[in-house]
Amino acid sequence: MLKQVVMKFGGSSVADAEKIKRVASRIKVARKLGDHVVVVVSAPGDTTDDLLEMAHRITDSPSERELDMLLATGEQVSIALLSMALHSFNTDAVSLTGPQAGIYADANHTRARITKILPTKIHSELAKGKVVIVAGFQGMNPNQDITTLGRGGSDLTAVALAAAISADRCEIYTDVKGVYTADPRVVKEAKKLDRISYDEMLELAGAGSQVMQARSIEVAKKYNVELHVRSTFLEDEGTWIVREVRGMEDVVVSGIAFDRNQAKLSILEIEDRPGVAAKIFGALADVRINVDMIIQSAASGFSNDISFTVARTDLKKAMPILEKVKEELGAKDILCEEKVAKVAIVGVGMRSHPGVAAKMFQTLAKAKINIEMISTSEIKVACVLKEEDCEKAVKVLHKAFNLNSKS
Amino acid sequence: MLKQVVMKFGGSSVADAEKIKRVASRIKVARKLGDHVVVVVSAPGDTTDDLLEMAHRITDSPSERELDMLLATGEQVSIALLSMALHSFNTDAVSLTGPQAGIYADANHTRARITKILPTKIHSELAKGKVVIVAGFQGMNPNQDITTLGRGGSDLTAVALAAAISADRCEIYTDVKGVYTADPRVVKEAKKLDRISYDEMLELAGAGSQVMQARSIEVAKKYNVELHVRSTFLEDEGTWIVREVRGMEDVVVSGIAFDRNQAKLSILEIEDRPGVAAKIFGALADVRINVDMIIQSAASGFSNDISFTVARTDLKKAMPILEKVKEELGAKDILCEEKVAKVAIVGVGMRSHPGVAAKMFQTLAKAKINIEMISTSEIKVACVLKEEDCEKAVKVLHKAFNLNSKS
Repeated sequence: MLKQVVMKFGGSSVADAEKIKRVASRIKVARKLGDHVVVVVSAPGDTTDDLLEMAHRITDSPSERELDMLLATGEQVSIALLSMALHSFNTDAVSLTGPQAGIYADANHTRARITKILPTKIHSELAKGKVVIVAGFQGMNPNQDITTLGRGGSDLTAVALAAAISADRCEIYTDVKGVYTADPRVVKEAKKLDRISYDEMLELAGAGSQVMQARSIEVAKKYNVELHVRSTFLEDEGTWIVREVRGMEDVVVSGIAFDRNQAKLSILEIEDRPGVAAKIFGALADVRINVDMIIQSAASGFSNDISFTVARTDLKKAMPILEKVKEELGAKDILCEEKVAKVAIVGVGMRSHPGVAAKMFQTLAKAKINIEMISTSEIKVACVLKEEDCEKAVKVLHKAFNLNSKS
Repeated sequence: MLKQVVMKFGGSSVADAEKIKRVASRIKVARKLGDHVVVVVSAPGDTTDDLLEMAHRITDSPSERELDMLLATGEQVSIALLSMALHSFNTDAVSLTGPQAGIYADANHTRARITKILPTKIHSELAKGKVVIVAGFQGMNPNQDITTLGRGGSDLTAVALAAAISADRCEIYTDVKGVYTADPRVVKEAKKLDRISYDEMLELAGAGSQVMQARSIEVAKKYNVELHVRSTFLEDEGTWIVREVRGMEDVVVSGIAFDRNQAKLSILEIEDRPGVAAKIFGALADVRINVDMIIQSAASGFSNDISFTVARTDLKKAMPILEKVKEELGAKDILCEEKVAKVAIVGVGMRSHPGVAAKMFQTLAKAKINIEMISTSEIKVACVLKEEDCEKAVKVLHKAFNLNSKS
């Protein structure tokens, strides 16, 4: 029986005619191996930014529905050009927009969720032997409007399609070779991982790894879609993101992630009564500010201090809201530390190897790096520290957990 | 009862953010007058050419289906930006692609015909008080693919929509002030016409006038859609294109059109038997070469000469076909005169004023301009002449038929 494969190419892979042709020849090879191929593609290069700029030359606050109408053209350009390139290589292909491909989404413009996929058209085109090229990042809402899926939307399209057509694998082609033990731009000894579990990848994404967005990995995990993250321009295998298998726990720490775009906020001496946290974080959620680590510490018997981190880019939006909350709750003060970073070690091996957190803290202490906040999960330990210490922290941890010597 | 108006803006009217805002403020004024407004818009400025260039960087012969997928993004950009601009002027608006607007077309990619319009969505959005902004030039074929409508496609969208929603008028906004007695770039005394009949406008378009394509005027005539061709950037009335009314015949010649892009071909000494013309023009039609004037003259008792004109840009494509036809028919020779032009005088008044053709020939003779071919209709006389004589011919005719003195 024919295998089905979904191949996803990001915007940098289709940035110009030459790159589009290279991608097409790569797809042609996959097709020749006899697989049914569905391709998902992003907008070329800087197209999305260019379109956003056009919108902002018209108005500071463009309607989100119209923004989606505008941005969706980017992927439509990619699919048409890529399909032409395949034809010129004598490979039959057909392009489909998100709506044409049967990708249904909710009505949250600019950040819609996929609600269902009806791949009737995809199946019928595959049955004709065609490569089906689907516009990533977009779907159709119940009002038949075009909606876009927000950050990482094309990955999400690819993974969700792979689930919908029960693809044997989903290949994410990108400008890096795969998932590394740490960002190779920071740690030159960082090694490419051959495979990693969904849960580890989720933790790495949550801790700042840019390779894939958490939402796509969640869907892959839910529907058991095997992901293969690899380079567009190299033949080498990349990193497989898969269900956890025996042997993975032998490695204590699989990877280290960090996020420099963090700021720490503390609200001091809030009255200790129910509903206080809900008030603070509800107000932030209302304006869509994601709060990451939260620590509540009792300052006295009757009041608390609450500290938490937000993306530094959200700070300007967060401050007036917190000032208002401070007044309402009668808190004493708000402290803001603008330049902090988060560093996390991740590995399913932590579950069976005690003392990992302690080793992390000792390693940082030895390097004279102060830890400001700590948060842990079953397979992750994350620390907030001064941004200036971030790079050093990643390097010493990479060495301490023997990642430098990984094969 | 509210009036319904369709306003169509060409690509040069929405070429950049400033122009889009000006168009939006113009639409806002129309909406404030209380009319229901449907707007049809083309791709911004050079977008279509840019997209074509992208396609040709990929392949010399792009698939027409994919070309339509690609080109349709141009208008989608326009509708989104124009809708944003209206929102920023506090005017509620919604953009719709051709398929969303219910415009159905046949499967002739890059030159589809509109087969039907189901304006359900347009009506429901108008009923909410919104300005409905529809992407011109595009529709959906029975296979749910995007098709484009070819040259003049956005005008066609506007006129067909006006017919489908029984609009009170269809305003074609453009970079000229209206329809002139002759091209004002050639005849500086040319005057803007206040109104002209569908039939006259059809003849002018057929004879080379660039203001509107014949196919849109045909639809307007068929469904009795009143057209108003006017400037995007001026408040002044332009030219109304309407059903013929009493009084129009008082004017003998309404306008003069010319087409410099013509070439004359003659096939000499073809055997005089049935099916010869069908053979020649069938072969040209097969490769979509439009033939304009055709003259068949008996050279002897047993053979004919056939002369005809084609667009000069089609000459290269026509020659090998004609060489083959020549062999098959045993004709003696093919003559080609590359640089000819067509000049036509048009007016419904001709029907009631005899001697118009004679006056045209005398005028040209007096100016020492040789006439190579002649073709007439009830309301038109057209002559083929050397291209170098074209401008002079238009000028002397404009004067001879008293068009210089029109108010």
